[in-house]
Amino acid sequence: MPGLPDAATQHELRETALALADAARVATLRHFRRADLDADNKAGEGFDPVTAADREAETAMREILAARRPDDAIFGEEFGATEGRSGWTWVLDPVDGTRGFLSGTPTWGVLIAVGRDGGPELGVIDQPYIGERFFGGFGAAWCDGPQGRADLRTRPARPLDQAIVFTTFPEVGTTDERAGFTRVAEAARLVRYGMDCYAYALLAAGQIDLVIEAGLQSYDIQGPLAVIEAAGGVVTDWQGGPAHQGGRVVAAANAQIHADALARLSGRS
Amino acid sequence: MPGLPDAATQHELRETALALADAARVATLRHFRRADLDADNKAGEGFDPVTAADREAETAMREILAARRPDDAIFGEEFGATEGRSGWTWVLDPVDGTRGFLSGTPTWGVLIAVGRDGGPELGVIDQPYIGERFFGGFGAAWCDGPQGRADLRTRPARPLDQAIVFTTFPEVGTTDERAGFTRVAEAARLVRYGMDCYAYALLAAGQIDLVIEAGLQSYDIQGPLAVIEAAGGVVTDWQGGPAHQGGRVVAAANAQIHADALARLSGRS
Repeated sequence: MPGLPDAATQHELRETALALADAARVATLRHFRRADLDADNKAGEGFDPVTAADREAETAMREILAARRPDDAIFGEEFGATEGRSGWTWVLDPVDGTRGFLSGTPTWGVLIAVGRDGGPELGVIDQPYIGERFFGGFGAAWCDGPQGRADLRTRPARPLDQAIVFTTFPEVGTTDERAGFTRVAEAARLVRYGMDCYAYALLAAGQIDLVIEAGLQSYDIQGPLAVIEAAGGVVTDWQGGPAHQGGRVVAAANAQIHADALARLSGRS
Repeated sequence: MPGLPDAATQHELRETALALADAARVATLRHFRRADLDADNKAGEGFDPVTAADREAETAMREILAARRPDDAIFGEEFGATEGRSGWTWVLDPVDGTRGFLSGTPTWGVLIAVGRDGGPELGVIDQPYIGERFFGGFGAAWCDGPQGRADLRTRPARPLDQAIVFTTFPEVGTTDERAGFTRVAEAARLVRYGMDCYAYALLAAGQIDLVIEAGLQSYDIQGPLAVIEAAGGVVTDWQGGPAHQGGRVVAAANAQIHADALARLSGRS
């Protein structure tokens, strides 16, 4: 991981990220809970909804980047890769949790990250309907929502049998992945399902202990990863390696419960 | 079901219900996402969290009822039954979705209902953190939330293979109940888990088609039942009988999908 950029660059990247989140909030709310909302089938089979909100939000964010950060690269869930030459790459998921979006639940989010080769250095998880934004990067981590603004801090270590674990299982994952997850779930105090990216926000906010997922894309995890690390948490793949390319992810409130989860996922305990 | 009460009584019951929801909102938010929050174990075994929020919110609501409606009966999740002589009974669940509350998710709610022998005639589902309130009764159904106020209307009929189904399964239910639920889930377009009482609010708001649950208490369903019926939906037990005493519940956006769900739950289709 490179060192921190200079203060002017930090400021510019932070303000740009917040401007992206503002624009995506407007674009997504134009479509959320609208009766005429429906989804195309992007994958050609299965259920992979993609909405006008997705496209309009990513378009709005790309317009801001073209104006403010024309030399940065972009990788977006909807429109793919745009090359850059600054060394910085923005990773955008305009609507993470499209099933939640289609169902009206306020658990989907806009995910934004920016970083260099080593992965995301700044991230945003924004929930437009609630009006709640989780930010982490360059030494700061905060939430701004309906009850005001507060620093984010992941929770201290506690044994797994007192811990709260979130996942998108049983919806995703292979049989082996489910078996690993089950070993963690059976030892936990409480398991909750189906919160989309909002689970990562709750982890950053010190409410829960673990989020375990599989089959992620890089744009699913880079924003959450930056927010959680800035709040004191640990995010890796199921072997303890880097998670910013997606795949299997364990996000943990602290190093102790992270180690416990890795051991159980691998069958070592 | 008795006829509508006179306009003055309707007004008084409606304003009292809204005052209860206001008071419960303050009492629950005092504890939501607080680091020192923890749960007693009410049942003595298993995981049945009950929080200071639960008790303080029900106490606050009972104080309002003692002042404004001293002749009404009360049945509350925390403090049980209080007899009355007006013929009206308030049914209160100060925090429905305690697991969600403990996890920081904005999917728990305050549930309030008032009715006579035939069941609830007015209901409220309030989500304090979002600041979102769903109301139904005496010919009105509305939502007031972060994006403003709107009438509630359940969605028109569509085939089950286009429908969205919510449940608290796999967490609750017997083996037979799960088998019935699975027959519905496998035919649906999309199944979502773990939204607590917020699922009923989404049904009333026209976002989803079905909510299917088992093992409910009367205070879990009476508020949602009144809101959903006022918005045009149908709420019964799994045999099509009254649901206001709890147990197995099917809440449906319209009569067609309700009939389809009942047939599959019973194994008739």
